[in-house]
Amino acid sequence: MSLRIGVLGGGQLGRMLALAGMPLGLEFVFFDSIADATSRQCGELVVKDFLDFKALEEFASSVDIVTYEFENVPVEAVDFILKHAQVYPPRAALELSQDRLFEKKLFTELGIATPKYLAINSEDDLTKAVAEGELPLVLKSRRLGYDGKGQFVLERSEQISEAWEAIGKVPAIAEAFVPFSRELSLIGVRGHDGSTSFYPLVENHHFEGILRLTLAPAGNISVEIQRQAEHYLQSLLDRMSYVGVLTLELFQVGTTLLANEMAPRVHNSGHWTIEAAETSQFENHLRALLGYSLGSTNSSTPSAMINLIGELPDPESVLKNPGTHFHTYRKQPKAGRKVGHVTISGHSASQVAERIVALLHLLPRKIAEQVTLN
Amino acid sequence: MSLRIGVLGGGQLGRMLALAGMPLGLEFVFFDSIADATSRQCGELVVKDFLDFKALEEFASSVDIVTYEFENVPVEAVDFILKHAQVYPPRAALELSQDRLFEKKLFTELGIATPKYLAINSEDDLTKAVAEGELPLVLKSRRLGYDGKGQFVLERSEQISEAWEAIGKVPAIAEAFVPFSRELSLIGVRGHDGSTSFYPLVENHHFEGILRLTLAPAGNISVEIQRQAEHYLQSLLDRMSYVGVLTLELFQVGTTLLANEMAPRVHNSGHWTIEAAETSQFENHLRALLGYSLGSTNSSTPSAMINLIGELPDPESVLKNPGTHFHTYRKQPKAGRKVGHVTISGHSASQVAERIVALLHLLPRKIAEQVTLN
Repeated sequence: MSLRIGVLGGGQLGRMLALAGMPLGLEFVFFDSIADATSRQCGELVVKDFLDFKALEEFASSVDIVTYEFENVPVEAVDFILKHAQVYPPRAALELSQDRLFEKKLFTELGIATPKYLAINSEDDLTKAVAEGELPLVLKSRRLGYDGKGQFVLERSEQISEAWEAIGKVPAIAEAFVPFSRELSLIGVRGHDGSTSFYPLVENHHFEGILRLTLAPAGNISVEIQRQAEHYLQSLLDRMSYVGVLTLELFQVGTTLLANEMAPRVHNSGHWTIEAAETSQFENHLRALLGYSLGSTNSSTPSAMINLIGELPDPESVLKNPGTHFHTYRKQPKAGRKVGHVTISGHSASQVAERIVALLHLLPRKIAEQVTLN
Repeated sequence: MSLRIGVLGGGQLGRMLALAGMPLGLEFVFFDSIADATSRQCGELVVKDFLDFKALEEFASSVDIVTYEFENVPVEAVDFILKHAQVYPPRAALELSQDRLFEKKLFTELGIATPKYLAINSEDDLTKAVAEGELPLVLKSRRLGYDGKGQFVLERSEQISEAWEAIGKVPAIAEAFVPFSRELSLIGVRGHDGSTSFYPLVENHHFEGILRLTLAPAGNISVEIQRQAEHYLQSLLDRMSYVGVLTLELFQVGTTLLANEMAPRVHNSGHWTIEAAETSQFENHLRALLGYSLGSTNSSTPSAMINLIGELPDPESVLKNPGTHFHTYRKQPKAGRKVGHVTISGHSASQVAERIVALLHLLPRKIAEQVTLN
């Protein structure tokens, strides 16, 4: 009867996948190690350790297909599940995106420009890199980095020990610090049949390493830049025989794009697609998984997304602003935690910009202050 | 913490209310007499008779506010709930819409044009109406009529007994048969503060009394016609101190609008708003209930809605058509039962029309044959 989708991870991305999947008749089973994972409101939630193989077997056997909504799922868990169920996006995408060095090497291999990088396996390596390269450089642990964690911007050679300490003395990469003009991301989707579709490039604004604001589409994007980004993402999708949504984060430096990282999943910078694209990233991820035709990624509505981080405003303080939609994930508010987001639409980018400004005046100061246009 | 919305009725309208409400952080409790009501997948479901007052009391006490998603909820149930919780739309709207005579009298009182009508309480009344009026006329039971049930089109005076028999010899109204050019509906929403907003008029196509196809917006609608319809609906909303979504079904005869009936709820002819309006009818109903600002009812995307009745096609047979979104209610298919719908969007009305034709070729014959453009 009804198809059951297993999702590794039970956060807001899983929640929004479920909300997109219910009209398609799908049922969701989430697997997470956290008992109050927000997705429990939209399906079953299995609360077990990701390496509890007995629980994974039961989970895998109870669903028709498995996907994941965060990229730090242990690859061992996916390997085990693959004995019992199909998993998309493919295992390789998960493994590659968990290691910044493998990821960057793949980019290089595919001709995707990146900031210069070097593998760092010791303080000595770092000393050598500083001696041979230019400062500042960014030291990043190869694994388990997200939302700015596991990173250190090294500005003076005296900081070598401090930097190595700060990231936990783990295998790392050192990247040239890029004086980028802005951060962009491209979200694409690939089906089992190899068909692909891409959303417009969007512009992302971070604060303390966490996404605060997305402008969709990014302004002043030439056809060439959009094409370049799509070409990069297309080559990644094809190389990995990818199925589902894949996100590529990019730095724009002048008219050049440098790939920063990829996320093998639906992405925070694509939440605007719920209201402002013909098909949301969530629906398209599910369409791809299930072998359905991909939906149009067109958008005729300029929009923006503001993350609600650390606290949740009164809904009416948002909704009284024209063009807004409010999303709460029903998570316990906590400093730095994404507890919801707002989508703002308008008939033009400048109207969206005006509406952002008006909204920021009404949001809690803590949230508004973190939304910077850099 | 989280607001709990009680919904009398657990059908697809309740289901879609819940899907619209989850991003707003709402929880849903449905009350229905049917154990496999489709809404159970999106919230709690209380399965009890609508006149089980003990169950109603528990239900009302467990939620913050109550609404209803079908108009044949017994008014006694609402009266009882009102002792424990607020109910919107207001009781008066429910009561009036349950009785075709009261409803038509209200229309008349507010200056809303209708087909000529007469109260019929006996076969004698009907005989008199036929003698004094023109044939054909439509005999409709005053209560419990929906989807074309409880109606008889009386074309010859010899059919008087048959007609009276057919509708069950119950209090009725006889209406002049209107040679209308088309059927339209207008969906509007009113907030606690009296603010109102209206979607564009849509064109509805029925078969055997059941809605099969909605075109949104209706083509060739003059500013005057839209204004006339809004004026009608505005006067109804204000008269009833209405809160929530109200739907008015109209016949268009030349450049004249005649009111057929109203539905004090979200409506099948507004499903297109999920994808093709800035704010869906479901979200706006909830915004109104909760005292939030109403969302924009604008639509810049021409669209159509096809009901999936009696059987459910393979999702891919729908989704492979550009511009489509698929909605299943996960109900057991049964002749005449609404089990899902499809939304079709395009950049112009003519593209939508082409897409409808293409889609109809791929839908099961039983469904496609019922979608007639009259």
